Amino acid sequence: MVLTKVVDVYRGGRVESSHCGHVAVVNSKGELLYSIGDPNRITYARSAIKPIQTIPVLETGAADSFGLTNPDISLLCASHSGEAQHTDRVLAILKRAGIEEGALQCGTHIPHAQDTYKALLAAGKDLTPLYNNCSGKHTGMLITAKYMNEKLEDYYKPLHPVQQRILKTLSEVTDYPIEQIEIGTDGCGVPVHALPLERLAYGFARMADYSTLGEKRAKVVDRITTAMMAHPEMVGGTGRFCTDFMGSCDGRLFGKAGAEGVYLIGDRQTGLGIAIKIEDGNGRAVYPAALETLKQLGIIDEQQINRLMHHYRPVLKNARQENIGELVPSFTLQKCESATVNK
Amino acid sequence: MVLTKVVDVYRGGRVESSHCGHVAVVNSKGELLYSIGDPNRITYARSAIKPIQTIPVLETGAADSFGLTNPDISLLCASHSGEAQHTDRVLAILKRAGIEEGALQCGTHIPHAQDTYKALLAAGKDLTPLYNNCSGKHTGMLITAKYMNEKLEDYYKPLHPVQQRILKTLSEVTDYPIEQIEIGTDGCGVPVHALPLERLAYGFARMADYSTLGEKRAKVVDRITTAMMAHPEMVGGTGRFCTDFMGSCDGRLFGKAGAEGVYLIGDRQTGLGIAIKIEDGNGRAVYPAALETLKQLGIIDEQQINRLMHHYRPVLKNARQENIGELVPSFTLQKCESATVNK
Repeated sequence: MVLTKVVDVYRGGRVESSHCGHVAVVNSKGELLYSIGDPNRITYARSAIKPIQTIPVLETGAADSFGLTNPDISLLCASHSGEAQHTDRVLAILKRAGIEEGALQCGTHIPHAQDTYKALLAAGKDLTPLYNNCSGKHTGMLITAKYMNEKLEDYYKPLHPVQQRILKTLSEVTDYPIEQIEIGTDGCGVPVHALPLERLAYGFARMADYSTLGEKRAKVVDRITTAMMAHPEMVGGTGRFCTDFMGSCDGRLFGKAGAEGVYLIGDRQTGLGIAIKIEDGNGRAVYPAALETLKQLGIIDEQQINRLMHHYRPVLKNARQENIGELVPSFTLQKCESATVNK
Repeated sequence: MVLTKVVDVYRGGRVESSHCGHVAVVNSKGELLYSIGDPNRITYARSAIKPIQTIPVLETGAADSFGLTNPDISLLCASHSGEAQHTDRVLAILKRAGIEEGALQCGTHIPHAQDTYKALLAAGKDLTPLYNNCSGKHTGMLITAKYMNEKLEDYYKPLHPVQQRILKTLSEVTDYPIEQIEIGTDGCGVPVHALPLERLAYGFARMADYSTLGEKRAKVVDRITTAMMAHPEMVGGTGRFCTDFMGSCDGRLFGKAGAEGVYLIGDRQTGLGIAIKIEDGNGRAVYPAALETLKQLGIIDEQQINRLMHHYRPVLKNARQENIGELVPSFTLQKCESATVNK
């Protein structure tokens, strides 16, 4: 196991904690161009893979059948904050598809939007799966099952056709054998997929440069990433990294966070895909690492970094709201001398 | 920087994330007996040092002047959950000392006890510093200032006599030069202290075997650690590690958690002190690491491990409350061949 520090956590002038991590930068030919840590680390993609999980919703025809708009498609790729703009839209999609809210099987957790949670409690209400950050993705799965005349009750189980289509699509886009993709259970109960980090980067490179995906899939992928970049408020929420990041990148870069410190980025201009995993799983380190990677590659400039400074070098505050430290990226990407297709 | 994996995080059968860490095991002569990672790592002790911060409250005479009981003293050492048993006791101590609740300067955060938070919101109330996990420690500082006729308004500032007494006491107990202790700002606004990890272990070894601290300090230290072990529910709260751990160890072991993955333990039977720092600061890994250390040292037996299994190998649940993985310690302590006094 390669352990390489990528982000330091300062308290005052001293490093209090530090995060190890892994970065893989791959082009749409599958060549590993830059890395740090172990680019072949087998990594659960978690929610970072949602844009690829959304492909079958469009390819089956379910999305058009139920009149999904660009903001709707963006929401299918989301780990949303549970704001009204997210939950209202989930309900509206389900209603158009004639599916009860109770069909959502994603479970409950306290939403990122504290105001939503406070308002719920103040009204004497309980959390429901609607507020789960994955309710958009689950809605995409449900409407696909409905459109395909498949059972709704067990759409989240590994052998359901909805999940099998996702697995096949992921294998195709990342060009990684389906039988080598390891399956676990995600935070919301659906299958979660583990692949080498550089294969995840390759998948996002092909989402950015979709020329080798075939005409039909290329159009679908273009719709998904265009929707995410045009409506980044759906992908995360107020103040969230994915939202601020895509909102600052002028339709060039799309990115998606996953739990346990995963981030995937596609660059439509260069066709590069970037995959990042923080070894310890702490999401606080992945956004500084993502922006530092883009800076070192020359993909984002000083102005963009400055607009995203609160994500690039986040200031840590204590319970008194005093600034007591900050996160600082601490790595230098290594150029891979002989770029080779890593399979 | 020595990077050594100490705890693996499994999802299904695969390691999803892993935590590096450092352990130092020191006896009351100051000899480093066992370690992993870097036992000299300069480490902010954070809240783990609260039992030492409590010494001046007793040594000045403030504790006895205001009639502090054993549960009260235990609460001064706490990072409590904000349950009624904690907040009621903080209010009672402040009242006996004639200090307003508004004097607490620890700031606000959402308490560990979700029920407390829900009840507050449902009642249309706001969080106050009373619910801060450090309100016991701040109460100890306030009553000391009051008893010593010092200003109450700025008791939390580094140059206030309350903080200077703590700094001097910490230097004496750890036998580490006062001018070498690095100071930052803690989560609750008071000074936080960085020392080599093995010096923190030595401090807790001397809290366990207090024979070299002088008669007066020995009595004070005995009262503090006895109070913590007799009333562990005050140190954490329902289901918290410190509470369950000390509740299972029959008055032999005292331990205290600190933010950013710190844990300190003293063993009254062997006079050993143990200090642990998770490099990435994630508290989820520090309890398995602490129990694994005690197991390898032969300080706790299988029965005790079994009683604490949910802290030793915690099961990870998802939003559907399914078991999806677990944390597993993955290190072997190294015996230090020639035990030397590390200063």
